[in-house]
Amino acid sequence: MYLEQINEPSDLRKFNDEQLNSLSQEIRNALIKKLSIHGGHFGPNLGMVEATIALHYVFNSPVDKLVFDVSHQSYCHKILTGRKDAFLFEEHYDDVSGYTNPKESKHDYFNIGHTSTSVSLACGLAKARDLAGGKENIIAIIGDGSLSGGEALEGLDFAGEQNSNFIVVINDNDMSIAENHGGIYKNLRLLRESDGKAECNLFRAMGLDYIFVKDGNDISSLVKAFRSVKDIDHPVAVHIVTEKGKGYAQAEKNKEEWHWCTPFDFNTGESKAVFAGEDYSSITADFLLKKMKEDKTLAVITSATPAVMGFSEDKRKEAGVQFIDVGIAEEHAVALASGIAANGGNPVYGVYSTFIQRTFDQLSQDLCINKNPVTIITYSASIYGMNDVTHLGIYDIPLMSNIPELVYLAPATKEEYLAMLDWSIKQKEYPVAIRVPGGEYISDGKAVTKDFSLLNKYEVTQQGNKAAFIGLGSFYNLGVNAAEKFEEITGIKPTIINPYFITGLDDDLLEELKADHEVVITLEDGILDGGFGQKIAGYYGSSNIKVLNYGFKKEFLDRYDVNEIMIENGLTDINIANEAIKLI
Amino acid sequence: MYLEQINEPSDLRKFNDEQLNSLSQEIRNALIKKLSIHGGHFGPNLGMVEATIALHYVFNSPVDKLVFDVSHQSYCHKILTGRKDAFLFEEHYDDVSGYTNPKESKHDYFNIGHTSTSVSLACGLAKARDLAGGKENIIAIIGDGSLSGGEALEGLDFAGEQNSNFIVVINDNDMSIAENHGGIYKNLRLLRESDGKAECNLFRAMGLDYIFVKDGNDISSLVKAFRSVKDIDHPVAVHIVTEKGKGYAQAEKNKEEWHWCTPFDFNTGESKAVFAGEDYSSITADFLLKKMKEDKTLAVITSATPAVMGFSEDKRKEAGVQFIDVGIAEEHAVALASGIAANGGNPVYGVYSTFIQRTFDQLSQDLCINKNPVTIITYSASIYGMNDVTHLGIYDIPLMSNIPELVYLAPATKEEYLAMLDWSIKQKEYPVAIRVPGGEYISDGKAVTKDFSLLNKYEVTQQGNKAAFIGLGSFYNLGVNAAEKFEEITGIKPTIINPYFITGLDDDLLEELKADHEVVITLEDGILDGGFGQKIAGYYGSSNIKVLNYGFKKEFLDRYDVNEIMIENGLTDINIANEAIKLI
Repeated sequence: MYLEQINEPSDLRKFNDEQLNSLSQEIRNALIKKLSIHGGHFGPNLGMVEATIALHYVFNSPVDKLVFDVSHQSYCHKILTGRKDAFLFEEHYDDVSGYTNPKESKHDYFNIGHTSTSVSLACGLAKARDLAGGKENIIAIIGDGSLSGGEALEGLDFAGEQNSNFIVVINDNDMSIAENHGGIYKNLRLLRESDGKAECNLFRAMGLDYIFVKDGNDISSLVKAFRSVKDIDHPVAVHIVTEKGKGYAQAEKNKEEWHWCTPFDFNTGESKAVFAGEDYSSITADFLLKKMKEDKTLAVITSATPAVMGFSEDKRKEAGVQFIDVGIAEEHAVALASGIAANGGNPVYGVYSTFIQRTFDQLSQDLCINKNPVTIITYSASIYGMNDVTHLGIYDIPLMSNIPELVYLAPATKEEYLAMLDWSIKQKEYPVAIRVPGGEYISDGKAVTKDFSLLNKYEVTQQGNKAAFIGLGSFYNLGVNAAEKFEEITGIKPTIINPYFITGLDDDLLEELKADHEVVITLEDGILDGGFGQKIAGYYGSSNIKVLNYGFKKEFLDRYDVNEIMIENGLTDINIANEAIKLI
Repeated sequence: MYLEQINEPSDLRKFNDEQLNSLSQEIRNALIKKLSIHGGHFGPNLGMVEATIALHYVFNSPVDKLVFDVSHQSYCHKILTGRKDAFLFEEHYDDVSGYTNPKESKHDYFNIGHTSTSVSLACGLAKARDLAGGKENIIAIIGDGSLSGGEALEGLDFAGEQNSNFIVVINDNDMSIAENHGGIYKNLRLLRESDGKAECNLFRAMGLDYIFVKDGNDISSLVKAFRSVKDIDHPVAVHIVTEKGKGYAQAEKNKEEWHWCTPFDFNTGESKAVFAGEDYSSITADFLLKKMKEDKTLAVITSATPAVMGFSEDKRKEAGVQFIDVGIAEEHAVALASGIAANGGNPVYGVYSTFIQRTFDQLSQDLCINKNPVTIITYSASIYGMNDVTHLGIYDIPLMSNIPELVYLAPATKEEYLAMLDWSIKQKEYPVAIRVPGGEYISDGKAVTKDFSLLNKYEVTQQGNKAAFIGLGSFYNLGVNAAEKFEEITGIKPTIINPYFITGLDDDLLEELKADHEVVITLEDGILDGGFGQKIAGYYGSSNIKVLNYGFKKEFLDRYDVNEIMIENGLTDINIANEAIKLI
C-alpha cells in the first residue's frame, strides 16, 4: 500500500504518476469503507481525491495554506496530513471531525462548516501574508454549489482587486447538495463546454485570472495546472471539472442522495438506517403540497436543502413552479419571500436553524420592518439537532426572537406544528416563524383549536399553584415531567404552561400567576442568554416571584452527547423539580 | 413651471423632450434648495433625476413596480409620485422620509435603507406576479456601489435563471459612498470604455441579458433604452452611466464629501454645521494611524464607510496598504478580519451598528468559533444614533452579546474607549468588539488602569448599599444621575457600577451585592429583549434581590425624538430613582 507511506504531504513527492493513481484508488477504497460503516459526506469527498493529492503534491502545506470551503470535502486532505488512521481503522474513525479543524492539525487553518466562506477567509490569510512580507501560496478550494452564496461572491470581488498571490480552485461537479440553481451556472456550463475558452467568464468579470482543467479527476492534468499557478503574483481561478461521488457507481448516478450518507451496505449501497415513518420533513412537504394545489400563489422556498422540508425530487416536480430552490443564498431567500408577500403571494421558507444565521439583516430589514406575511420554518433548532460545532441549532432564539414584529412560534407536537403552519399561511398580518421541535417526534392526536392570531396568549395546560412550569416547544414535555416530579415530592399540583409564543410575554397570565405562585420555571431548547426565559426573569424582576431559567449555557459545543449536555445544564426532570422545591 | 403640473407619473407623458429637460432642471433646483436647507442624500439624487423621469415616463407605476436600492436616491421618484410639496415647500420638508416608504405612497413597495436588497426584493415581486399570471414590469434600480454586497449578487444570480420579465437598472456613477473597491469594478469600467460591447460581461456571466446607455443623464437616450426593454420576457440589465452630484459643481468634483450633506450655503457650498472638534471618529483614526506605524501587521478594515472611523481620504493615503476598504461587503469584512488574524495579522474592523446586522453568521462561524483576535468597533450603537427605521443602532446587544466567545465591551468615556482599543489590539486571545458610546462625547481625563483581560470583572465606582445602579456604556452616566437622585431622596448612598463587559456577568460581584442590597437597576442604550439587563435578571431570578431593567422596548422606531423615547421608556434619572425606591 502506498497510503501506509504517507505521513505528511511531502511523502507524496516520492511517487510517480502511476503510483499516485494507485494511491488515489487506495484512498477511495478507504473512504468508501469508512463511510459505509460510519456515514458522512460521500459525494464531495470521492470527487476530490485526485485534486487533493495534486494540491498537496504541488504546494507545500502548511507553509502554503489550503482553505476548504464547507470543508466537508476535506477527508482526503486529512488522510494526507497525518490523520490517515482515522480513515483506515474503525476504532479511530471518530478521532477526527468531519470538517477542517485547527485543533487536529497545523494543516487546518479554520473550523469551517458553513458554505461560501473559504474565499474571504483565505483573502485574510493572503492580506496578513502581504503585510508581513511573506511569499507563501494561499489557496481556497470552493465547490460550484457554494459559489452562489453572497459571502463567496463578496470574497471573489475583493480577491479580484488584489495584486498578489491568490489561488481559488473551483471544484465544479455541476451539483450543489441538489442540482444547482442560478444564472452563474449557465456560465459555468458555457465554460465547461468551451474548455474554458468562452470570452464571457464570471471569474474574469470579477477581476481574476482564469485557467481551466477539463478532467479534474486526472492527477497529472491537475499537477500541471497547479504548477502553472504556483507562486503566481495575482489572483487566479483554477476551474476544475470533477465528478461528484466518483468511483462508486450508485453515487455517480444519484448524486443528491449520495451527497451525505448514513452507514450502508458496501455491496448494494443500501442504507442501514432506512426510515420509512413520517417526520417533520415528510409532513411538511405533504401539507404544503396539498395547500399549493388550493393556492397557486403559495410558493415554497429552499436555499439548497430541499430534503429538510421533505421535498424530494419527485415532490419538487409535483410542486412545479411553486417550488423555488434559490441555491445556497439564504439572504436572497428571505428577501425574495418578503417580495413575494409584498405582491400578494404566499411564501414559505424552510431552513436549518444553523443557516438562518446567514440572514439576520434580511429578517430584520427586508422582512420585519416591512411586516410582510411570510412563513419561515426552522429545522434542527434543538440540542437534538446536528452536533458539529459549525452546525449547532441552539442559537436561533436570541437571533430571531429579539427582532421586532416577528412572531416566532414553538410547537411541541405534530398537531401544534401543523395548526401553526395552517394558521400562518392563511394570515396576512405578520412575518411568522415556526420552530420545528427537536428530539422525539410527538403526535398526541389532540385537536388544536387555539387561535394563534391572539398573539402571545399562552395556554395553561394544568392549573395548579405554588410553582408554574413553562416549557417551550420541544422542552414542553420536560416541563410536564418536572411538574410531575414536583407533585410527587411535594403533593402540590403545580401549574403547567405551553407558551407557544417565543417572541412575546403573556403579561396577563404572568400577572395572574403572582396571586398564588411563588416560583416560575422556564425551559427552552436553546441557549439561555438572550432567550425566552430571561424575558420572563426580566418581567418578574421587581416582584416576589422567583424565576428559574433552564436551557443551555452560552458556549460552542462540539460533537457532544446529548444526555451529558442535558445533565451538565441541569436539564433533568428531577433536578428541575428539586431546584423549584427549594424556592417554595 | 412644469413641476407644478406633475401630480402623478402619467402627467409626464404630456411633455416633449425639451419640456422634460426643463422639468429635470426644475427638479434639480428644488433638490439643491431643499438639501441646502434640510440636508440629506445629495449626490445620489442629483445623479438620478433624468433616469427617474425616464423610468416614470416609460413605465406605468404603480402597476409596473420600481424598487430603489438603498432608496436614498428616491427623492425624484417621490417628487413625481404625488409628493412634490415635500421638496418645494420648507414647511413640508419633513412630510416624507429620506427613503421609500409604503406608508407614503402606493408607488413605494418597501421600506428600504440598507444596500444591496433591491434585486432580491424585486425578484419576489416578479415571482408573485408570475404565480398570479400577471404581466407588469418589475424594475430594480441599483447603484454600482451596492453591487458588491452579497445579497445583491445572490439576487442577480437568481434573477439570471428566471424566464420572465425582470429589469435591473444599474446606475453606474463609478462611486460608492467613497470610491468603489472590488474586481467587478474593473469589469464595469471595461463595459463603460467599450460602450457596453466587451464580451466579458458580469451581468451576462450571471445569466442576464444586457444593454448599455452611455449617457445616463440624457432623458431621450434613457427613454429609448427603457422602451426597448419594456415588457421584455426575460431578465435584463440596463447599464446606465450617470454622474453623481450632477448639476452642482462642487458635488461633481468632491463626490465622497457630497454623498450626503448637512445644510449648506447654496452659493458657496459651505456646510452650516462645520464641526472641528474631536469625536469618536477622529480619535479612532488618530489612534489607529499611530499604532499602524508601530505595527505593520495592523490592518484597518471598513466596508465602504471609512468616514465613521475618521479615515478621510488623506488619512487613508497615510495608512496605505494597511487600510482596506472592502466595499459594501460586511460579510467579507468579518471573514477577512478573521483570516488576517489567523495568519498573524492584527485586524480592526469599524462598522455601524445597523450594518453589523449584515454579518451575524460570519461573526459566529468565521470569527468566534475560530476565536481569532479581531477588534470590531461598532458605531452609532445608541438611541442617539441614526433615527430612520432602517438605520437604528439599538439592536446590536442582543445580536452580538449572545454569540459565544465574543468579548463585547461598552466604554462610557473617551478614555475608556481608547484603553479598550489599546488592550484589544494588543491581546491575542479573543475576538473583541467595542461599542462606541452614543450621546454626549465625554472625556473626563481619568486614566484607565483596568486590566480588561480579567474578563467580566465589573468596576464598583461607588460603594454603597440597598440599591446598585449598573449603567452600561453610554447609559453609565444616566445610572450615576439616577443614583444621585436616589441618594437625595432617601439619604442612602447606593452602589454604582460600571460593568464594561456586555457579554458576561461578574458572578462574584453580583453574589456579593446580595449581602447588603435589595435592588439592582440595569441601564442599557439598546433594546431590553435579549440584552444585558435580562441576563442580570436571570441571574437574580432565584434570589431575593429585585431587578429593574431599563432600556428600550423591542420595536421599530422611526424618525423619533430622543427625549420623547427616553421618557416613554422611563429613562429619566428621577423615574428610575423613584422606581428603585419603591423596591427597598
